[in-house]
Amino acid sequence: MRAVVYRGPGLVELSDVPQPHIAEATDAIVRVTHAGICGTDLHVVRGDFPGMVPGNVVGHEFVGEVVELGRAVQRIRMGDAVMSSDFTACGLCRWCDRAEHWQCGQRAFFGTGTAFGPLLSGAQAEYVRVPHADRTLGVLPAGCSPESALLMGDNLATGWVAVERAALEAGERLVVIGGGAVGQLTALAAQTAGAGLVVVVEPHEGRRAFARSQGSIAAHPDEALALVRKLTDGDGADVVVEAVGGNAPLDLAMALVRARGRVVSVGAHASETWGFAVGRAFREELSLSFAIGDGIRLRRKLTGLVTGGAIDPTVVIDARGRLEDAPALYGLLATQQRLKAVMTP
Amino acid sequence: MRAVVYRGPGLVELSDVPQPHIAEATDAIVRVTHAGICGTDLHVVRGDFPGMVPGNVVGHEFVGEVVELGRAVQRIRMGDAVMSSDFTACGLCRWCDRAEHWQCGQRAFFGTGTAFGPLLSGAQAEYVRVPHADRTLGVLPAGCSPESALLMGDNLATGWVAVERAALEAGERLVVIGGGAVGQLTALAAQTAGAGLVVVVEPHEGRRAFARSQGSIAAHPDEALALVRKLTDGDGADVVVEAVGGNAPLDLAMALVRARGRVVSVGAHASETWGFAVGRAFREELSLSFAIGDGIRLRRKLTGLVTGGAIDPTVVIDARGRLEDAPALYGLLATQQRLKAVMTP
Repeated sequence: MRAVVYRGPGLVELSDVPQPHIAEATDAIVRVTHAGICGTDLHVVRGDFPGMVPGNVVGHEFVGEVVELGRAVQRIRMGDAVMSSDFTACGLCRWCDRAEHWQCGQRAFFGTGTAFGPLLSGAQAEYVRVPHADRTLGVLPAGCSPESALLMGDNLATGWVAVERAALEAGERLVVIGGGAVGQLTALAAQTAGAGLVVVVEPHEGRRAFARSQGSIAAHPDEALALVRKLTDGDGADVVVEAVGGNAPLDLAMALVRARGRVVSVGAHASETWGFAVGRAFREELSLSFAIGDGIRLRRKLTGLVTGGAIDPTVVIDARGRLEDAPALYGLLATQQRLKAVMTP
Repeated sequence: MRAVVYRGPGLVELSDVPQPHIAEATDAIVRVTHAGICGTDLHVVRGDFPGMVPGNVVGHEFVGEVVELGRAVQRIRMGDAVMSSDFTACGLCRWCDRAEHWQCGQRAFFGTGTAFGPLLSGAQAEYVRVPHADRTLGVLPAGCSPESALLMGDNLATGWVAVERAALEAGERLVVIGGGAVGQLTALAAQTAGAGLVVVVEPHEGRRAFARSQGSIAAHPDEALALVRKLTDGDGADVVVEAVGGNAPLDLAMALVRARGRVVSVGAHASETWGFAVGRAFREELSLSFAIGDGIRLRRKLTGLVTGGAIDPTVVIDARGRLEDAPALYGLLATQQRLKAVMTP
């Protein structure tokens, strides 16, 4: 089959690779109809993640059709149109019992090397093997487009979990640091949840313009502090969502949040330590929380939001192509000429 | 009048000082009937807080009777038996509008120097001046003993806010770091809120014994990690409350909390920065929150808990005396021979 294959730092190409088959009784094989390219994939292709060796298939956002099933799969049926979480969970452990799937000992993250579990081949391909199919996959709901369903597996789940973890209340003022697909979907999630004000902080003008077109205020990082203070009577934001990853965006988040406010980080962090302003956090009773989108737990909630029309995540998709367009699409995303790309194998 | 006066690092003595009088129209003068000695006072007396100069009166926990009122006071009446928050709040600003009193620009903390606002004379005295009396004071409710009411102004408010900020759910496993009065009241608050397990981590054997006598498990810090792992199937605690202050207790809290768990710090932090384990917090989706007890906002809730019999905070009081006993009581508390002292001037 054809697949987007990592060839070394900075290089992806379309290659022929062996078609996957059932390896475990709980597996499904999915014929991929739509595969997304995520900001995380850009890191993967840059070689930022350990265990991603030349020849591995990239990609963790997909929807498709079930074409082969392990004998232990019970909920998913042959021929089902399915959506997927970007990582697997077993559905049988105490973490899965309470829907804390990211902590499941059977977690594997499609197409990202070994940073987040054992190596699992990616989904930017004609076919993908899905372990623990009963928990990892969901049947595409009526009224939900494949592109929406694809985004519900990762980017929208991440945007929504930020708002959920912040316990955002209607009327509160929220700042998102980062205007990539996750940041933009966080802004839309916050609007849907009744935020009184949403400011997207993003250095790239095109992404700021997109945020404005979607009803948010946008600010360059250099002007964010002054603008947010002005918009909040000098207090700072009730909630700041950090959607970039790294210590500098966390520092900016702390600078933008008001006393008694909450910072939620949904960015990926490569650093192990960060100089945390504990004195201020104590005096001003701050909260800081790290959250990872869970496309399994949130599937039903996001389905309601999307099929009910409360949120249309597909507005972030501004590039579409076929698998053979992958190298070009990666280039457009890496240079921020596009926000979100979806391929139809 | 007689008052407990700071004379320099390590030294308090009973002295004659001028009796306070109304200075602002929103003031009340309270004749103190009960004054507590708090762990914070031990720091004050050690000279740890800026702005506490020789001659200042110590103390921030008290109840008493209103004997003089400014002309603008509306809710509090002459002769009222009153309880007090340990800090003042104006009741008129946007922070007070949403009951975020600690952030009120008119905050002053009784008898602690200038670390938390302008200098305000303390309450270990025959009389104390209370600014913004309408917000800072509450009328002693029927069925509430003066000692309970005294603890509701600080130690119990702090213990309760930890449980509240953690959003503790019934059945969850909670660890408290620190077995002082606040730590012990946090443990009782957690039990009252339905915690499935409460472990008090405390180096002093007498305090561990007290925790056990109140239905908690107790552990020395050196054995805490192994014990908590054993009690939680290796996961760690759902919630860890840090009730000591400082970076080392925060590190211990992080070590004891499970993936997706919450750390709430109610200790006082003198350090400005802390090396935060951002990598683990990201991978394990941790939450960290700093909270300060608010004896104004929580007054009604704590009244319900105390008068309804759900919690008896006075169990922590194991030393009582008169004002002239203050130097001896400070010594007993500083050497951890007693947990909590209350004086009746």
